[in-house]
Amino acid sequence: MAQPIALAGLLKQLARLPGLGPRSAQRVALSLLAAPEKLAELATALQRAQAELGNCNQCGNIAARNAAGPCLCELCTDPRRDGSMLCVVETVADIWALEKGGEFKGRYHVLGGVVSALQGVSPDDLSLGQLEQRLRTAAVPVQEVILALGASLEGQTTSHLVASLVHRAAPQAVLSTLAKGMPVGASVDYLDEGTLGLALLHRQRL
Amino acid sequence: MAQPIALAGLLKQLARLPGLGPRSAQRVALSLLAAPEKLAELATALQRAQAELGNCNQCGNIAARNAAGPCLCELCTDPRRDGSMLCVVETVADIWALEKGGEFKGRYHVLGGVVSALQGVSPDDLSLGQLEQRLRTAAVPVQEVILALGASLEGQTTSHLVASLVHRAAPQAVLSTLAKGMPVGASVDYLDEGTLGLALLHRQRL
Repeated sequence: MAQPIALAGLLKQLARLPGLGPRSAQRVALSLLAAPEKLAELATALQRAQAELGNCNQCGNIAARNAAGPCLCELCTDPRRDGSMLCVVETVADIWALEKGGEFKGRYHVLGGVVSALQGVSPDDLSLGQLEQRLRTAAVPVQEVILALGASLEGQTTSHLVASLVHRAAPQAVLSTLAKGMPVGASVDYLDEGTLGLALLHRQRL
Repeated sequence: MAQPIALAGLLKQLARLPGLGPRSAQRVALSLLAAPEKLAELATALQRAQAELGNCNQCGNIAARNAAGPCLCELCTDPRRDGSMLCVVETVADIWALEKGGEFKGRYHVLGGVVSALQGVSPDDLSLGQLEQRLRTAAVPVQEVILALGASLEGQTTSHLVASLVHRAAPQAVLSTLAKGMPVGASVDYLDEGTLGLALLHRQRL
């Protein structure tokens, strides 16, 4: 069936979004066309995001752009956060996940991924240079770097890379990594043997 | 965590789309912000859709707007389609589903829903008036009206409404409805007894 060009274009752009396929793109497009005010609001929100958002020059988090000076995110400019603690994560989504818990009160550094031979991500694709410079020039010396990367082979390889970088650039800093073990709510008989082995190895005294 | 207003706005608009929740909205927003050209293309596609698309004045399908005259869709203007066959559907998505098969060569009429007491949809919310006028004033008299509404209680109630309207406005037209029975690829032991009963009742001679 021939479709108006504007419709075909909208369907194409929607189907490219992660988690949406051709069918869900159809559903979204029809719901937007049935409610023109929703369509207009989404278009405005996208334009605003395009105009106003960028990446924090310090940590890589999403931040409101600043015409007057460097772009800094809400976490980097918040004076209540502890600059001596630095949590290294893969993506901005990881910051959001950690902030939901509200346990961590330090600052973050977004690497932008992990080293992966399969996906062609080399150390040069990550913000390792910025991290090194940040550690060397920090106003408050960093006392602890928490490596909060994925528990995958790629995450662990990248953790080693970041660890040696921290040793060089901030020898005073302690390195730590997220505990591995049973997720809250898990039952023992459904855990894989790798997790179970680590949970046994790092068992904690009551 | 405080978020830039433009980010919060984008997340809110995305989470309102059908099939997306807060988490998938996050994922979509981050992927768009990581690829500014994708974000710009989506914003442009939405604006274009907003400016150029409307509903066909005759059948209710999505159509390119026409500054010079009434807005008519590609199916209503296609001279190869048989105007004497009219297929009545609930939504535009139903047209797309039927057109994928390519079996039907007539024209469509989109009701815009089905009568539902629970969801507060009354006959006045459907395009029944337009259908009556269309049947009465058709250049080519309609010879068959196919009711392709859902096999639900609401769909069947609406079918009865449309049927009596067709009797009044186009007494010459034959009424038919989609066959009910086994879907292609189904196995008998997984069919519900309602479908199985209808498939038995309407069994066909080999």
